[in-house]
Amino acid sequence: MHYPKGVKIAQTKDVNYGNRGMNLENDLNETNTYYLLHDIAVIHKKPTPITIKKVDYKSRNDAIIKEARFKIPSTTDYNGIYKGKYIDFEAKETKNKTSFPLSNIHKHQIEHLKSIIRHGGIAFLIVRFIFYNKTYYLDAKDFLLFIENNERKSIPYDFFEEKGYIITEKYNPRIDYIKIIDRIYFKEVL
Amino acid sequence: MHYPKGVKIAQTKDVNYGNRGMNLENDLNETNTYYLLHDIAVIHKKPTPITIKKVDYKSRNDAIIKEARFKIPSTTDYNGIYKGKYIDFEAKETKNKTSFPLSNIHKHQIEHLKSIIRHGGIAFLIVRFIFYNKTYYLDAKDFLLFIENNERKSIPYDFFEEKGYIITEKYNPRIDYIKIIDRIYFKEVL
Repeated sequence: MHYPKGVKIAQTKDVNYGNRGMNLENDLNETNTYYLLHDIAVIHKKPTPITIKKVDYKSRNDAIIKEARFKIPSTTDYNGIYKGKYIDFEAKETKNKTSFPLSNIHKHQIEHLKSIIRHGGIAFLIVRFIFYNKTYYLDAKDFLLFIENNERKSIPYDFFEEKGYIITEKYNPRIDYIKIIDRIYFKEVL
Repeated sequence: MHYPKGVKIAQTKDVNYGNRGMNLENDLNETNTYYLLHDIAVIHKKPTPITIKKVDYKSRNDAIIKEARFKIPSTTDYNGIYKGKYIDFEAKETKNKTSFPLSNIHKHQIEHLKSIIRHGGIAFLIVRFIFYNKTYYLDAKDFLLFIENNERKSIPYDFFEEKGYIITEKYNPRIDYIKIIDRIYFKEVL
């Protein structure tokens, strides 16, 4: 089962569940809801991009999509605003123990991250290594420096330990990545 | 045919086309592409939110959605970054001649616009009156002032003429709303 990232499958008998690898997304959704409810930041996951091919209209408000396909996303999955700054990130999980495969990030997503930095936004990756159950914030500037200076098809785990910021899981908010943004961009004493 | 806003229907025999009322969206997509290519701003339309109920997996990279439903969006359709500022807006067309029906904007979209302003972002509506073929930029601050001070179910056309900024259509970019943002937020001489 290879569900495109972020696809939520509603409960029907016809569906196998794609829960594996969706925990980071659930954690981030809960975190973003926490930020929203506490008026800390307004950050949402974008819906999964699809191309609709067939729609049945039973009535004005009752349309059922009968055929659609997943599209490759041209941007990252999450964006929003924090302390007046534009926030943009991609979140990925990997089962890999030694490195993060770059096949996880599409070429146009890399271009997108570059544009965001050029225009003055805050961009980063959140990467969870499932085997170690460790979640890292990696600033897009460090990520881009790595891929510009390496021919490798993956980023070694060591690089995350060296350049990344570990996000300790808490009860609420689960993945408090705003704390890392504060440390890097707002120089607040934590 | 009432397609939820922003739904693109690919060409198949089973589909009736929802082209009517989609011109503003096409104009904005072209405009945003222009901004992107000229490195002026990074603004994208969010995908249409859906709930997926059934998926067929022919192979790893060949999944077909067999049943899905449209969801009510909880945010606006467009967001991004311009000159370091977070940009957020909703775009709507109306056939109405005398006013813009407030049923076009969902309650949680209004809450979303309020949050964006509170967090220091630039938020607005782009409204096209099809009958007059006129497109207005209405700043979210003016929009919110109106709905907080009126019991009406629609905003009179006069209000757009008074408080809004008309966006003259050009060849490229079609709907140059950044020009209005410059005038209001960056006090540049145009």
